[in-house]
Amino acid sequence: PPRREVLFFPSQVTCTEALLQAQRQGGPPGAAPAPAATGPEVRKSPGPAAGAAGSGAATTAPAAAAETAPSCLCPLPHGESSLSRLLQYVLSARSSLELCLFAFSNPQLGRAVHLLHQQGVRVRVVTDCDYMALNGSQIGRLRKAGIQVRHDQGAGYMHHKFAIVDKKMLITGSLNWTTQAIQNNRENVLIVEDEEYVRLFLEEFERIWEEFNPV
Amino acid sequence: PPRREVLFFPSQVTCTEALLQAQRQGGPPGAAPAPAATGPEVRKSPGPAAGAAGSGAATTAPAAAAETAPSCLCPLPHGESSLSRLLQYVLSARSSLELCLFAFSNPQLGRAVHLLHQQGVRVRVVTDCDYMALNGSQIGRLRKAGIQVRHDQGAGYMHHKFAIVDKKMLITGSLNWTTQAIQNNRENVLIVEDEEYVRLFLEEFERIWEEFNPV
Ligand SMILES: [Zn+2]
Ligand SMILES: [Zn+2]
Repeated sequence: PPRREVLFFPSQVTCTEALLQAQRQGGPPGAAPAPAATGPEVRKSPGPAAGAAGSGAATTAPAAAAETAPSCLCPLPHGESSLSRLLQYVLSARSSLELCLFAFSNPQLGRAVHLLHQQGVRVRVVTDCDYMALNGSQIGRLRKAGIQVRHDQGAGYMHHKFAIVDKKMLITGSLNWTTQAIQNNRENVLIVEDEEYVRLFLEEFERIWEEFNPV
Repeated sequence: PPRREVLFFPSQVTCTEALLQAQRQGGPPGAAPAPAATGPEVRKSPGPAAGAAGSGAATTAPAAAAETAPSCLCPLPHGESSLSRLLQYVLSARSSLELCLFAFSNPQLGRAVHLLHQQGVRVRVVTDCDYMALNGSQIGRLRKAGIQVRHDQGAGYMHHKFAIVDKKMLITGSLNWTTQAIQNNRENVLIVEDEEYVRLFLEEFERIWEEFNPV
């Protein structure tokens, strides 16, 4: 069945080394598949005051990560979290990844995108010039690695926050890809495998890609 | 069939008086139904430089608005736009409207929500305290009208931008409900009639509603 999931943030802070490690060793194709599709799911935010309502799912499902990283000794929890789910969906790219992000500064997601590029996935990034200039942005680093990046020319913000994986999975919501937002804000991210939605967002990406063409 | 639509912004600036007028005269139940469901649709942004790609749909469908306002003589175009579609979906509420919005300053959407409240729709609003204090926010006005509003207490942003209509339609995306964003930014809004998504977002709303309870 097509994947449908909602991730809520803030995310618990979990160790994501195992996911990046597995990707580095395995790489496409085959390794590090997207999280299994088990019907509509939700990743609840543990939230600053969520208590009983929000903390269940994130703290009781360490199986997947433990399998791939039995050896990590860092002090962080090694279970799943909204961030680790998001990372897994991004890392599932095998041929193409379009990113249309107002802000992109989270190092784990930056490393994931860098890895995919190194492994031959065609990565294209569209971002907002105002945020790009800020300290901590991953954009400069991705550019140096040879990834194509285009940004707007000034009027209005490029305020989207979506990604398209292999032209078949849409990741979209309120979340900017910053550690501040991931760890502190109330945010949502939808993961949708739906031809129509993917097509419409891909068309929007291509319109922006052309509009931001510097030549 | 359940409604599924994607609205892209920036929106063309169109006259929305007719929609608010029709709501004032008709009100729930019955009048001003949500836009007809015709399968997955898209409202393309005319965009600052979209040209041929983006301006078609928004400028060639004035029929609906013309029907309800044959008499408006203002100089704005009276066709449909992403803003008028969004307004229609909001105005289609008959029993309840949950708003979970980082920023809310657009006057047309403010008037629409105020009208719904006057007509007996149960409106609840959750917002971010940092933005609420800004000039031009609709929040103070809605509170004065007797609408229940709760806001966060400080740590992290309440960064969602979603609405739930009659507990059966989810409106969510990157768009803050500000005129600046509506008219200038590249944004997306999904409209989804889907039980699972509505349930998950309603649960998130209730978690936040309780967490922001001042008592
Ligand atoms: Zn670790
Ligand atoms: Zn008019």
